[in-house]
This record gives sequence, C-alpha cells and structure tokens, in this order.
Amino acid sequence: MKELSLPGAADVLAAAARIAPHASVTPVLRSQVLDTLSGARLHFKAEHLQRSGAFKFRGACNAVSALTPEQAARGVVTHSSGNHGAALALAAQSRRIPCHVVVPEGAVAAKLANIVRHGAVLWRCASTQAAREAECARVQAETGAMLVHPYADAKVIAGQGTAALELLQQCDTPLDVLVVPVGGGGLAAGTLLALQQAATPCELVLAEPAGADDTARSLASGQRQPDFVPATVCDGLRGALGAPNFALLHGRASVITVDDDATVAAMRRLWQVLKQTVEPSSAIALAAILADPARFAGRNVGVILSGGNVDLDALPWSRP
Amino acid sequence: MKELSLPGAADVLAAAARIAPHASVTPVLRSQVLDTLSGARLHFKAEHLQRSGAFKFRGACNAVSALTPEQAARGVVTHSSGNHGAALALAAQSRRIPCHVVVPEGAVAAKLANIVRHGAVLWRCASTQAAREAECARVQAETGAMLVHPYADAKVIAGQGTAALELLQQCDTPLDVLVVPVGGGGLAAGTLLALQQAATPCELVLAEPAGADDTARSLASGQRQPDFVPATVCDGLRGALGAPNFALLHGRASVITVDDDATVAAMRRLWQVLKQTVEPSSAIALAAILADPARFAGRNVGVILSGGNVDLDALPWSRP
Repeated sequence: MKELSLPGAADVLAAAARIAPHASVTPVLRSQVLDTLSGARLHFKAEHLQRSGAFKFRGACNAVSALTPEQAARGVVTHSSGNHGAALALAAQSRRIPCHVVVPEGAVAAKLANIVRHGAVLWRCASTQAAREAECARVQAETGAMLVHPYADAKVIAGQGTAALELLQQCDTPLDVLVVPVGGGGLAAGTLLALQQAATPCELVLAEPAGADDTARSLASGQRQPDFVPATVCDGLRGALGAPNFALLHGRASVITVDDDATVAAMRRLWQVLKQTVEPSSAIALAAILADPARFAGRNVGVILSGGNVDLDALPWSRP
Repeated sequence: MKELSLPGAADVLAAAARIAPHASVTPVLRSQVLDTLSGARLHFKAEHLQRSGAFKFRGACNAVSALTPEQAARGVVTHSSGNHGAALALAAQSRRIPCHVVVPEGAVAAKLANIVRHGAVLWRCASTQAAREAECARVQAETGAMLVHPYADAKVIAGQGTAALELLQQCDTPLDVLVVPVGGGGLAAGTLLALQQAATPCELVLAEPAGADDTARSLASGQRQPDFVPATVCDGLRGALGAPNFALLHGRASVITVDDDATVAAMRRLWQVLKQTVEPSSAIALAAILADPARFAGRNVGVILSGGNVDLDALPWSRP
C-alpha cells in the first residue's frame, strides 16, 4: 500500500485562493420556522447553488487548477455517481482540457445530463466500487489522463474544505457545531481541515445514511470498513470512506446515522419551508439534527446543503 | 359604483417604510445558464423567500399596519386561494388581531396549511368569484372585521409595489424591463407605481395564463372582462383583474399570455437550474420571457418570483 498523501489545514487556504476566480461564494440561508422546529440556530450554507449544483466543484476546480500544463494536456478522468463527474467536467471545460467520467449504473438522470452538458466523455460501468475503479484505470491507461478521485485525493479534500471556511467567515456568530453529509469523506475531511485552519473549537458531526454507514463503523472500530452494498436514497453518499479521509477523520468527528425516511422528510421540509431544491444527500444533514434535537438545542449550527441535482421525475416521496 | 380609491407612486414609499420592521429583504438571484438560455440578463427577485412564502405578505402587512386601533380590534377578513390568506393571517398574528379567511374549493393544500398555521379562522366556499365575495361579506357583517381584498385595495397594491422598488435598488444596473405575473393585478399595479416612483423608463410586461387571460382582453378592449371560468395550473392567477388595478394598468403595461405547458416547463427549469422551489404562478414570468425571446434579447430583465407554496404531492408534471 502506497503512503497516503494527506492534505493539511493550510492547503484549504491555498485551495480557496486557487478556486476564487472560478467558484461562486454561495449564500448562507436562515429560517425562523426551521430554527423553531429544531430548537437550534441553523445556518445553511447553500452549496446547491454552487456552480454545477454542488460543493463538488470546489474540489474538482482545485485539482484541475493545480495540474501542470503537461498533465493538463492529457486531461482528467474520474468515476462518480454524478456530482463530482459534472463538477470535474465543468472545471476541465473551463481550462479547455479533456475530461472522462466513469458512471456507475443507477446514477441520477439529471446528474448524467450535467456531465454531458459540460462536454465530458461518459463511460458506463456496474455500480460496485471495484467495477468503477477498474474502468477508471482502463481509461487512465488508454488516455494518460490524470485521475481526480472523487474524495480520496488531497487536492479534492482541500478544495471541499473551502465551503466550511467560507461559511465560518460569513456567519456573524461563531458556530458551535457543523453538520455535513458523509459518503467518501471528501467534504467531511475538508471541513475538518477548515475547522483546524480557523482554529475554532467548533465540533464536527457527520450525517450518514443507515444503509451506507461504513463511516460510523469505521470510526467506531478504528478500521476502515469498505466492503458493503449501499442501500440508500442518498445517491451521493453510496461510496466507501476513503483511506486519507479516514486517516484525517478518525478520532476527530462523530457520526449520526439516519434512516432514509427521515432524510426524505427533511428534504420535503427544506423544499417546503426553505424553498430550496436540495437532493437527499444534502437533506440528510438536517435529518441528523432533527433526529437528535437535544444535542443541538440552543446552539449555533452550521449545515452544508451539499447539492441540488435531483431527478424531478423520480422524487423520493412519489415512488411507488 | 363607488369612486375608486387609487394609490399613487408615493404610497409605495410609505408602504416600504411601514413594512420594513416586518418583511424580509429578499435576495436577487442570477444564473449564467438561464441567461444563456434566454439571451437576456435575468435578475430574479426571490419573493418566494418572503415571509409566508410569497410577495403577498408585503401588501397584507401594509394593510394591517395601517389600521387604526379601533379597526384592528375587530380584525380582518379576506378571500384568497391561499397566498394572500396566509400572508394576511401572518400579518394579523403579528399585530395580535383576529383574521378570517374565506377559501374557495380547489385551493392548494400547502397554502391552506399555511393559513391555519398562522392562526386564522378558515371559511370554505365555492370557487366562483361571486361565492367568494358573498361569503366574505357575510363574515364581515357578522364580525365587523375590516375587508382586506387580495388585490383591489389601495394599501395592498402599494405594499406589493415594494418588491419592485427593492429590486430596482438592489440591481447594480438599470433594468430595461420588468416581468411580473398577473392575476387580480395587485402585484402588477403595485409594480407600475414602483416604476413611476423610481422615475425609470423600465417597461412593464405582465405574464398571464392563457386559461385566465382577462387582463390581456381587458387591456386590449379598454373594458374589464371579469366574467370567465379560469382554467389554469396557476392557482394564484385565477382571479379577475380588479377595478383599481385596471384603472392603473390600462395603457401602461403589455401582456404576454402563456400556455400551462410552457409555465410548467419553466417551473421545472427554475427548480432544476436555479434550485428554487417556486410555484406555477411564479414560473409563468420566466415562461413569458422564453415565449418571446427576441423581445428580451440582450436586455436587463427583472423577474419577480412571486411565491413558492406548492403541494409537493401534486406537482404539475406528475399529474395523471
């Protein structure tokens, strides 16, 4: 096993400078109704309004911007259930370099459309982790493209951390706790680095689907638990926690696991009250707060609304 | 027929001062994707993020705030398909006075829930204009409550105008044209007054459902055409253009009529691209722009996203 390349807190600052010309500064949304419902003061970082419709653009843009001209000329490749693929495609398109995206079966149609819209080449594969990585390696070998892993990548992790860094700067009050969704752990690990960079005592809580709870089991056991078959409506959180992500997060974050029913209920609330079209993988953060209200009562809570790319013809509450 | 009491441009300024302690300053949203799609520079005034989920709070709040203590003690009454009812209920709740809302059959469930949540008394009636007004008159006679008509009311019209006034102040560039939905004409007439108050040459375009196009026919013929049976997915735009609204708008605004299919398509785009949960009665403004792109090409266009109270279990694209 090769040595892990772990990003540090300062890398988040470097990423923020690198992506500043390209990424949006997304707003922070508040809601009296949701504050009353939760008993907490919620500060929603609207990353579903980020370019490409998810925070993923931050990491992808940081990785693409950091390529040497020689690397960039050969393009980039990744595997992604959707949001990272679209984000990388957009980042590559901005730098006018080729982009290949390996997409597992079962991906959300709206996300595939975003990838194609930004000019990437699509490669389909089975939905297992092994199939994704094998197809990705094949494309990489054939094209010489640089792999930009969706989460187990130092540049990607540092880039994702810029969302939390921005949120901390935007809030008029110090945050006591920050809740972010966890799948592969790019946003989670990046957020941890951002909190270290800001030198704040703010606690980090990860919201994870009960049907893909490898992060909870990994952090509890002290060993990564990458072998599982995900079963969750949160299509963006089906990946296994990455090795560098685990190394950064172990001992430094706690996890709340959430049933899909609670996630879908939270998603409806965000649509109905906040009027924001967020995807299940985003709504899970609010669901985690509502699942354990005593833990958050009276506190200033940051919530990263991570993405908003949903298939409007297959909403989770209208499925047969 | 009694003399019409028409508000003037200065009344919009007075309304802005009156509602400032209560109403939200809603953001202006932009989208590169929608600018490219339309060929125009679109500035979306996010009134679906207004308190109660629609611009209607502005007019209701202005009317309630202007009541004398004696009037206020007897409460307020209105008839509304939903958004005005909820807005008046919230405004009355803030002043701790009674509120009665007459609701026609066929109103959206989410809107009824908002009315009840803010403590108003609900009265049901048939969906015709005559039935609404008769029931409203009955409640008024029994309770002594002051009628706050949803649109044919000087204070309501002036209050609705504050949305456009705010938008003009928020934009970093002068707007060439402003597109707003029209039903009873409260927002439309208020917006006209705001443009007069701002002394801008900005053009006013009204977006109206083809299945409730009395405003188009009224402005074309020079005579109000209040007798029709509305048939449109835009539940907020089924009312007939009011008399003071007609008097203000005649000769000073043009209308684009829009089929429901185009409105629903625009609504999907706003959900998917802008990630904003707006209702059909809001989306019609974007639909009008996309229906006549040559008219808006290259121009700075203001669009009032008027409300976001939708029934998530009965979305217009998933109806049988």
